[in-house]
Amino acid sequence: MGDYPSILLENAVNQVASLPGIGRKTALRLVLHLLRQQPNEVETFAGALTRLKQEVKYCRICHNISDEDVCPICSSRNRDHQTVCVVENIQDVLFIENTGQYNGVYHVLGGIISPIDGIGPKDIEIDSLVERIVPEQIKEVILALPTTMEGDTTNFYIYRRLTALALPEPLVVSQIARGVAVGNELEYTDEITLGRSIINRVAFNG
Amino acid sequence: MGDYPSILLENAVNQVASLPGIGRKTALRLVLHLLRQQPNEVETFAGALTRLKQEVKYCRICHNISDEDVCPICSSRNRDHQTVCVVENIQDVLFIENTGQYNGVYHVLGGIISPIDGIGPKDIEIDSLVERIVPEQIKEVILALPTTMEGDTTNFYIYRRLTALALPEPLVVSQIARGVAVGNELEYTDEITLGRSIINRVAFNG
Repeated sequence: MGDYPSILLENAVNQVASLPGIGRKTALRLVLHLLRQQPNEVETFAGALTRLKQEVKYCRICHNISDEDVCPICSSRNRDHQTVCVVENIQDVLFIENTGQYNGVYHVLGGIISPIDGIGPKDIEIDSLVERIVPEQIKEVILALPTTMEGDTTNFYIYRRLTALALPEPLVVSQIARGVAVGNELEYTDEITLGRSIINRVAFNG
Repeated sequence: MGDYPSILLENAVNQVASLPGIGRKTALRLVLHLLRQQPNEVETFAGALTRLKQEVKYCRICHNISDEDVCPICSSRNRDHQTVCVVENIQDVLFIENTGQYNGVYHVLGGIISPIDGIGPKDIEIDSLVERIVPEQIKEVILALPTTMEGDTTNFYIYRRLTALALPEPLVVSQIARGVAVGNELEYTDEITLGRSIINRVAFNG
């Protein structure tokens, strides 16, 4: 887009266009939409974002986003606190929660080991994960990290740290199943996924 | 998406998801992106939007968005002030300016006549357009409204209002050409557009 007739408009568009996946045309459309709203609605919009940034807390146990010192999942009596699912970020917790299939607790790493990006084991919440195992009597750690080189490296590093612990009972370390998506045709599944779904086949309970 | 672990997060996602074309998953992604930024960056982001809403002005001549009482286009000495292009909204001005093919001025209606939405001629800037013709000695009005029933109705209403004026010299009322897009194959052009491009054919200047 060329010159804007207003610096105020240009600033607002530049800000919105700085968001990932939002181009300048979309940014302009969103800004003009906000401009058509009532002043108090725009205040509410902007206020919700600044308040989130100013007031947000992270659960001191699992590092998920939270309004309290301990998040609703970690403080719930209905969850299995001896099973911990390790995820990269906050979104992953929401995605897994949405399945309704998991009743354990989480541990949010806040990233994965990535030497290229200068992220080492000390930059993410791995120490705090290892420190949870004994006091919380955790029986199973489920790794749900991305299937990338960085994800594999992080999985392997965590696995080594966990198996090095001296524990009264053995700790189960598992990872989520990868395979053909439910409803998908084999024809349209990539070879790596399909191959893994064959290797990790499970008993058929007809 | 199901329950969020934080009301602050939920509020922010709800606000962003209220924007047109932004679903809840995208809203979450954008909010978490903002959350990873520095506090002052989030302030700047939110501030750009509230400042725009609080301080924005509209040009008193053409009703385009402006930082001053009169917009840069209306106050420019290099523009042809006797040719006025009538558009529905602010975006349309930017789109036409981006072509670099137009050197006249604009008139932003701020909407089009739409009985279904309860928008009549008095709700948009038609009177102010008609009042510009004589004092500004306007020679041509170019209609660049959408090709919808509402656009056609608005075109027709403006045309009637303009032709009813008692003017010393005749006023030219034109509309932008509709036709096959430059570079497009005839095969993939809809019949209405193709038909109109034949009816409105222009002389070939080999």
